[in-house]
Parts: sequence; C-alpha cells; structure tokens
Amino acid sequence: MTSLNHEGRVLHDGLSKKIMSADQAAAFIKNDMNVGMSGFTGAGYPKAIPAALAKHMEAAHARGEDFQIGLLTGASTATECDGVLAEANGIKWRTPYQSEPALRKQINAGEAHYFDMHLSHVAQQSTIGFYGKMHIAVVEVSGILPDGRLIPSTSIGNNNAWLENADKIILEVNAQQSLMLEGMHDVYNDIGMPPNRKPIPLVTPGGRIGVPYLHCDLDKVVGVVLTNSPDRNSKFADPDECSNKIASHIIDFFHDEVKKGRMPENLLPIQSGVGNVANAVLAGLQNSPFENLTGYTEVLQDGMLDLIMSGKMTMASATALSLSPDALERFNANIEELRARIVLRPQEITNHPEVARRLGVLAINAMIECDLYGNVNSTHVMGTNMMNGLGGSGDFARNAYTSFFVSPSVAKDGAISCITPMVSHHDHTEHDVMVIVTEQGLADLRGLSPRQRAKSIIDNCAHPDYRPMLQDYFDRASDTAGMQTPHILDEALSWHQRYVETGDMRIKKSAYKIAV
Amino acid sequence: MTSLNHEGRVLHDGLSKKIMSADQAAAFIKNDMNVGMSGFTGAGYPKAIPAALAKHMEAAHARGEDFQIGLLTGASTATECDGVLAEANGIKWRTPYQSEPALRKQINAGEAHYFDMHLSHVAQQSTIGFYGKMHIAVVEVSGILPDGRLIPSTSIGNNNAWLENADKIILEVNAQQSLMLEGMHDVYNDIGMPPNRKPIPLVTPGGRIGVPYLHCDLDKVVGVVLTNSPDRNSKFADPDECSNKIASHIIDFFHDEVKKGRMPENLLPIQSGVGNVANAVLAGLQNSPFENLTGYTEVLQDGMLDLIMSGKMTMASATALSLSPDALERFNANIEELRARIVLRPQEITNHPEVARRLGVLAINAMIECDLYGNVNSTHVMGTNMMNGLGGSGDFARNAYTSFFVSPSVAKDGAISCITPMVSHHDHTEHDVMVIVTEQGLADLRGLSPRQRAKSIIDNCAHPDYRPMLQDYFDRASDTAGMQTPHILDEALSWHQRYVETGDMRIKKSAYKIAV
Repeated sequence: MTSLNHEGRVLHDGLSKKIMSADQAAAFIKNDMNVGMSGFTGAGYPKAIPAALAKHMEAAHARGEDFQIGLLTGASTATECDGVLAEANGIKWRTPYQSEPALRKQINAGEAHYFDMHLSHVAQQSTIGFYGKMHIAVVEVSGILPDGRLIPSTSIGNNNAWLENADKIILEVNAQQSLMLEGMHDVYNDIGMPPNRKPIPLVTPGGRIGVPYLHCDLDKVVGVVLTNSPDRNSKFADPDECSNKIASHIIDFFHDEVKKGRMPENLLPIQSGVGNVANAVLAGLQNSPFENLTGYTEVLQDGMLDLIMSGKMTMASATALSLSPDALERFNANIEELRARIVLRPQEITNHPEVARRLGVLAINAMIECDLYGNVNSTHVMGTNMMNGLGGSGDFARNAYTSFFVSPSVAKDGAISCITPMVSHHDHTEHDVMVIVTEQGLADLRGLSPRQRAKSIIDNCAHPDYRPMLQDYFDRASDTAGMQTPHILDEALSWHQRYVETGDMRIKKSAYKIAV
Repeated sequence: MTSLNHEGRVLHDGLSKKIMSADQAAAFIKNDMNVGMSGFTGAGYPKAIPAALAKHMEAAHARGEDFQIGLLTGASTATECDGVLAEANGIKWRTPYQSEPALRKQINAGEAHYFDMHLSHVAQQSTIGFYGKMHIAVVEVSGILPDGRLIPSTSIGNNNAWLENADKIILEVNAQQSLMLEGMHDVYNDIGMPPNRKPIPLVTPGGRIGVPYLHCDLDKVVGVVLTNSPDRNSKFADPDECSNKIASHIIDFFHDEVKKGRMPENLLPIQSGVGNVANAVLAGLQNSPFENLTGYTEVLQDGMLDLIMSGKMTMASATALSLSPDALERFNANIEELRARIVLRPQEITNHPEVARRLGVLAINAMIECDLYGNVNSTHVMGTNMMNGLGGSGDFARNAYTSFFVSPSVAKDGAISCITPMVSHHDHTEHDVMVIVTEQGLADLRGLSPRQRAKSIIDNCAHPDYRPMLQDYFDRASDTAGMQTPHILDEALSWHQRYVETGDMRIKKSAYKIAV
C-alpha cells in the first residue's frame, strides 16, 4: 500500500513513524467504544480500518466475546464502512445518518439502535458529552503537512469535533484524494461553547472564516494508515420527465417571486438535498435565465458542480462532495479554478441555524410523503421502517427563506401516494414546510390555514388517481371533527395500513366511500 | 379619556394633533385589510381600537356588508382584542398565536382561518410579503417623546416590524403603562434581509444592541388614541404538588448535569414557556442552591420576576411581561432597579434561532401530550381542535442546549394520558425533544433510539394507570412492525378515538389485550 501515490502525503516525521497496517490500527478499537469516523454522503469515509475492525469483531464473536461499537460519523458512508461493520454485527449504536442496506436491515430488525438527529446538532451535543465519551476518532485525510496540519479529504463533516474530542486518533491517508484539495476547505475552530460564544462571522456563502486545515493533538495519534481507494461516487440517474417537471415548477415559482419583489434577481443561496430529484432541480437551473447564483448546502452534487463550471453559480459552500465518477473527473481536471469557487466546511457550519437563517437559503429537500396539511415524512417507510435518516433537511427547512419539499406524486407504479391523509411519521411539521412540489404541480402553503393547505395540496400536487380519495377523506373529516385540522382518527393512517396489507394504497373508486 | 394620566405622554406636537377617539381611529380599518396589532401574552395589546372596530364590523354585517380583517400580532392578546373581534365575526385570518375562547371556538368551527407558526418567523416572513400587504398597524405605547420616538409598552412583539411595514399607523397611548418602562426596552433595527445580513451582535442574555425606543415614519400615523386600561394580568395558580414534583425532577437533572461537567454551575439561560407548570419550575429554582442564573425567554412571568427580585437571577431578557396583578405591583414598585436587570426585545430577537443556539438556552415548555418516541403535541386537542398555538416552543426547543417538555402525566381526572402511543398532532418531532418530565419522573432521551426512548418514557413518565397499556402497545407493535419506530398503524391513534367516543382513554385492564 505504500506506493508512490503516497509520496508527499505524510510529511510529518513523528506521524510517518506511526504508519502501520489497518489491522494494527484497528486493534486500538475495543468493544463498547464510541468511535467517531469521518465520512459524509459517501465521501471522505475511512476505507481500510472499518474492514479490518470488522474482521476483529467477527473473530471476537467467533470466540463468544462481545464486540460492538457506538458509531458516529458526519453522515452516510459506504459499504466499506457502515456496510462491513453491520455485516459483522459490529454496530451497537449509530448516529446521525446512514444509508447502507446491511445496516438499515439491522436497524429495522431491532438489531442496532439508530438515533436520528439534525446534522447541525451532532458536534455540539457530542462535544458536551450527551452521548458519552468519544474513545477514538478514525479520520480520512488527503495528506499530512510537515508541521502536522492535516489536509482534509472530500468531506469535513464532524472531523474537527472528532479530532478534538477523541482520546485517540487514527488517520487514514488516502492517495486517491487529490492533494490539490489543499486550500479548498475552511475549518472554523472558534465556535466555542455556551455561555462564551460569539457570532459566527460568516456573511456570504463563499466567505472564509477559518483555516484550510484540520488540527489535532499529535500525541493522540496512535496510527497512520495509507489507503488508495475511491469514494463511493455513485452515478446519478439522468433527470427523467417527472424530475424535470418538478424542477420546472420550482423555477416558475422563482420567477414569480422575483417578479413580486420577494426574491433578488440572482435568487438566494440554494440548498439542495441529496438525490436525483434535487439534482434535477439544479440541472433545471442550468437552463434557466438566472445568473450569479450561489449555493449554501451540505453536499455538492453533479448538478451544482455543473452550475459552477458553467459560470451560472459564482460560489458554493458544502461540507462534502458527492459526485458521480464522471463529475469527479471534471472536478479533478478543474480543481485549481474550482478552489476559488467552492468552500468545504465543517457540517456544524454548513448546517448551522445561525448561518442558514442569516443567508436566507432556498431549501429544496426530497421527502417520502407529505400529508394534507403539509407535514412531511423524510425518514420512515410506512411509519416504522427507517430509510436513511433526517440528514440536514430540518436544519435548512426550519431556517430557510423559503422551504420546499419535493417528491414524485406516486411511488411503486402508483401503489403508493406521496400525499396521504396523515403522514405515518413526522420529521418536518406544518410549521416548517412552505412549498410542496410534485410533478403534478406546486402548492404554496405560506400563510394558509390547514384547511386551505389541504385544498392547495389536493388540487396542485396529488396524483389524479388519489385526488378523489384525498378529497373524500378531507370532506368526511370536515364533517365530523375539529375544523382546525380535520382528521378521522381511526382512518388517518389507514392508507399505510392498506398498503402493508394489500400492497396498494388505492381502493376501488366505487367502494371507498363505504370501505375506508 | 384624556385624563391627567396622559399628561406627559404625547409630547410630539404633530402627533398630539392627531389625538382622536377610538371610534374615529377604527374607521381607518376597512374590510379585507391586514392589520398588525401589538400584544404578546396578554400584554401591550390595543385596548380601545379593537372594540371600536368590532362595532363597525357589526354595523357593516347588519347592513349586509362584508367586514373582516387579517389579524397579525406578537402572540396572544385578550378579550378586549381577539375576544371582541371574534365575537363580531371580524377575523378572517389570524396568525401567529391566540388564546381567546371566542376566537378558538370560531377556529375550531371552521369559521376563521388560523395559521400557526414559529414566533421567530413572523416578522421576517411578513416583511418579505409572504402574507400580503400590511395595511395598518395598531400599536400600544407608553408614551411619545417630543421628537416622535415611542416608548414601548409591556410587550414589543412584532411592533417594530408592523410600524415599518404598515401603510398607516394608529397608536394607542395607555396611561396604565408605567412611563418608567422607558429605558427597559432594546429595539434592534439592523436585522436586515438576505443576502445583506450581518450577525446579530447579542452575546449575553442581558446585552443591549439596539435603542430603547420604537421608531416610525410619523407621516404614516393617522391617529393617536388615549387609553387607560390594564393588561390582562391573569393570576397564576399557586404551584400544586404535581407542578412541584415536575420542578424538582428538573432541578435534580440540573444538579446532575453540573456534577457531570455538562452545565456551568450557574446553569445556562433559562427559557420558560407560559403557564402554571413552567412558572412552578421557576419557583422551584427560587429554593434551589443555584445562583447567578440568567433568563432568555419570551415572556417574563411571576416566577422569573421573583428570581430577579431575590437576586437569584442576575439578568432576564423577554419580549413581554405577563404578570399577575400582585406581581405587576411589585414590578412597578421596583421598576427603577429592575430596569438594569430586565431587557424587553422584539420577538424576532428573543426567539431568534441564532441567539438561542449561541446562548445555549435551557428550554422548558409545556406540552399537551408526547408519545412513546418523544414526539410532542403542543397545540391540538385530540388531533383536530386548536388550543392556542405553537408559540415560541419550537424556536427554543430546536436551538436549545437542552430541551425539556413538561406536563402532568394525566389530565381530566385520569381520563386522558399525556403519554400516548402516537401523538395526535406533531409540533415537535423526536429530533427536537431531549427530556420529558411529568410528576412521575424524568425521561432523558438524549442519544436514545426510539425503542430505548419508549422504555424510558413508559418507566419514568407514564402514569401507573397507563403504564401497562403503553407497554402492551409497544410490545405488540414490536412483534409486528419495523423496529426503528414500532407502531400498529390502525391502533396508533385509538386512544384519542376512544376518548372522543367514551370520554376516557382507559379500558378495563382485563379487556385491553383483546379490545384495543
């Protein structure tokens, strides 16, 4: 593994003496430890230690010994991290976000505890000690300078907090990460703790308020492991007709807001959640007349990179890159220029309510479902099974200038309506949701009472197959119940129950007035 | 009404010429206007214009004409404001908070539209124009200086925004409000709009960053009305055994956090919701060993005033006073000293996520119910009927250092459990709720997965009458469903449905395994 690729990457004498195998380094991690790993949306996670650790765990389990850890990261990692650890039954407790099928399965089988939290809260609450001691940090970096400063990798996430809080540190130096990333990061180390906090002095999406390096107490570093593995780099689906329609509804809305004087001509900093639909919205902006856009988001995806490279977007701030292999190639080929236009920050800053509210982000996030009254479920399938987690959607939606939640109006070939009478899990309440968008249209909920919202959502966003069913529910609820938020309590979740039982939320049109 | 009491209160020549009757002033308000009135938690609301306006509305209705307004305030007002306007069927649309029985009845009968929102969002979103034009502002003040600066009344709320945004302004000068309030307020006028915002420079609860006066374009003032009426000044119930137990659980928790080094010895700024239980917690602190406390809250109630007067609390920040008649007397008798210890601010600042997060508030708010997984309902009775509204609970809970939601474990003589399988309305999700407290005990949910939370809440907070029912639901849900958040979808809201049908959430112990 100590190939030429690592030349110039471990320049600190003391740390170069701590280079060891992943197996040796993983041996520092013991049963019941809390481990803070790097990684955010499949970028910058450790590539070698988790697999080595998983082997140690499996060996321990074979000996009849307990070996599980509490695992904290920035956000999602990849198969080489969450995946292998879950397969080894090595995760006792996990926060704040995950997306690996093996781990998801364990969570939903009750075999691992998952604590789903706002990404902006993780560093603070972990540092205070709400989640116990942090025993060890495992952090991927691009390189180590002669004085021990660390060049961060493709994500920062909570790395600055983990390095500060952990008793011991293991560094993975990944030769696949461009050393040209040096200078793109902005690590703010002065956030402090109450009651001694000052304002975070960030006033523009591209502002720099910190330093381009991570720091740590070098005496805490117990091992340095050399790796040479790419990030997850999943490919995005090309925008389909549905995504394009959603994008065009949002862009029409932007036009209208600008026309009404409620938004500047270059809009406001765009935050875009992860995924194909959100990516399609950014692709839609590429073909819009808007210029001099800015981005203030968690994750820089292909769509935002394209906006930057085309000159449509002047600056973007994120805590992680999450690029397809093609986009990564474009990124690396143009990294010198991009370094002036992209800033990677700790997630406590990218997602901080103070900054999001100040900058006035346009927060565009995907949802699993919303209900008649604009409550949004971002996390749970049929109310009980975890998909991935909340991520930063709440950080942004709550503090947004305007918050959007987007989804196709139906899923599973129409068997699931993404508009339901009552969501089966609440991640964002009616109070945080301004605009709902499906391929059918856009519901502008600002200033509407719940009953008015129901009308707008049914008329504008629901799929035609479900519109009469939703209207019927709403009408009957309005006849029988309190009129602030009409519901039929023993029917509110019946659509989900029907799907669980029959595989379809629909019932025959002639039957539903009687049968529901 | 122009008694001696108003001497020295309207010192501006031009405005003194605009003194008129409430009836004359109310005539500026026309059908379908949006009106921004002062008032927050029954303090500082207009006392005369609403009644005069209500008469105009009734006369118009008698003539067969439409006459309703959109009404925005700081928060709740009183019978003389929301009450009379509702009785006159004069409110078409209302935000952001209300507590008058007449209005509540109309809202729940579907006769008035109520839009329930975070109090920190109102000024920004109204100023941008999300809720349409603001035609007229009606603002109570204590006095008018010779140069036209306004001495605010017992609340600031959104008054600075209303004065700025409205086309026309009516001032009520209330001789009941002490002129000695002058200097207690701190009105910050530099919040700006994205993308040109700077940090809010407030770094301590008692800091002053603005000016002690409200300003307005004097040419917009169309009328000045003299009034002489007290605020609502409701009496608090003396803390009962239940409230005292809740208070003592919280204080024990504080002790433990200090001992563990997770909280400073003088705690952190306390935010306390409105109501008897929250007030009891503050009374409990009076008898605790904690010293040099600070308050950063919306509403200064009796309990916090007592902490200040006893020297236990050094500084308190709020947007409104909400004192009992006795406490108001103590306040006015000591106002000279209190002016150095109490700061009244616009609600956009008291509730601002930036400041709440920076200061690290301990947010203690009442709830209607919470569920097994720590979701909280603050607003809806049995899922459909609005009680008062969300208020600032979300502003504070989301951004708190530690968030607490408190309630007696049962209501209506035990017929309602305040812990239910699933809340019937979600105002605060699991992601924002750290600690649940009832008289039974305290559930510390930090870092717990939903299943772990359920155990903690059942064991520590549920009333013994309901504990077996909750455990039974949880056990059966765990057998049948996804294990991240176990639920039985067609039973999750059955307790509320049973209450609606039978007036009692309980079922006979022997029957519930079959009957539920």
